[in-house]
Amino acid sequence: MSKIITVSREFGSGGRTIAKRVAEKLGIACYDQEIIDKIAKESGFCEEFIREKGEYANTGSRFFNALSAGYANGLSLQDRLWIEQERIITELASKGDCVIVGRCADVILRDKAQCLKVFIHADMQKRMERIVNVYGETEQPTERRLKDKDKRRKAYYQYYTDTAWGDVNNYHLCLDSGVLGIDSCVELIVSAYNKLG
Amino acid sequence: MSKIITVSREFGSGGRTIAKRVAEKLGIACYDQEIIDKIAKESGFCEEFIREKGEYANTGSRFFNALSAGYANGLSLQDRLWIEQERIITELASKGDCVIVGRCADVILRDKAQCLKVFIHADMQKRMERIVNVYGETEQPTERRLKDKDKRRKAYYQYYTDTAWGDVNNYHLCLDSGVLGIDSCVELIVSAYNKLG
Repeated sequence: MSKIITVSREFGSGGRTIAKRVAEKLGIACYDQEIIDKIAKESGFCEEFIREKGEYANTGSRFFNALSAGYANGLSLQDRLWIEQERIITELASKGDCVIVGRCADVILRDKAQCLKVFIHADMQKRMERIVNVYGETEQPTERRLKDKDKRRKAYYQYYTDTAWGDVNNYHLCLDSGVLGIDSCVELIVSAYNKLG
Repeated sequence: MSKIITVSREFGSGGRTIAKRVAEKLGIACYDQEIIDKIAKESGFCEEFIREKGEYANTGSRFFNALSAGYANGLSLQDRLWIEQERIITELASKGDCVIVGRCADVILRDKAQCLKVFIHADMQKRMERIVNVYGETEQPTERRLKDKDKRRKAYYQYYTDTAWGDVNNYHLCLDSGVLGIDSCVELIVSAYNKLG
């Protein structure tokens, strides 16, 4: 059975960077953008739709809402994307040890792989700074935007997995990247993973 | 400023054992029973009252409820115990680096020391097994008893600190001791502590 690390993260907490560096250190694959590419290739959904609708509950965007509410074979498009995403994450995990970023992989793989379930968070100020410094956004993102992103991730997760995103009991290791720092988070995850039976 | 590790924990998760071993590894003090002894000596409250009322919201015990509801100088006895506890934890922390178990130390020391705030949890089954194996209780504790203990810790914490106990955002490091194991938890905390600036 594969040994997987799933990384859930608050928006702007550096979870994606941490996941990538953990995978590099362990010499195993990291799936993030790769999942989107694979779904796009195999399902025909466009990349932007997958990025938005494969991890977030509905936004104010009328176009996307109308699109995802469209039904085919009794399922909404978002439901079909979920099924596709579930199939591809299961397939990737079966190939061998890896790190998977977001997309409810922790719940999808619950009975299919041995998972170290990680959650990365940081306080609002640290996350806003990070978005400006790392992604070079010219305008300071608003607290409202960050909260909205997290709220929609949480709602998506709750809807498709019936599990509470960000609830301490659903993870094995929760790290405050703002206080601990990215380097320390990477090392702690690698260390915890190596000790798993 | 002292560098403190505060360990909050679910009942039966092994948090106390982990705290003790972390302190041993780091060669620093660990305050747990010591806090109770010190409060007892300096305040005149009896040990059982401190143990029960310094960390738990009211139980069904009529004796203790009646006692702690007694007012003196406009404060309930439980409020006076809180003040005593806050003073002693602050005093212990000012003496130097240490590990403090429970008793809202993470919030009490918020602006008084550099804290690594740790939360230890584990699933119900693992905690019930631990209580039987480690404490040698002859009867399997009920899920209800464990839930009640945690519920009352949570309520106490909420009342005196206005902060949510067990909320991932209030801790820097949350560990599932059931999955990671006690040894691994000890090492992860030591490593995170050593990396703090």
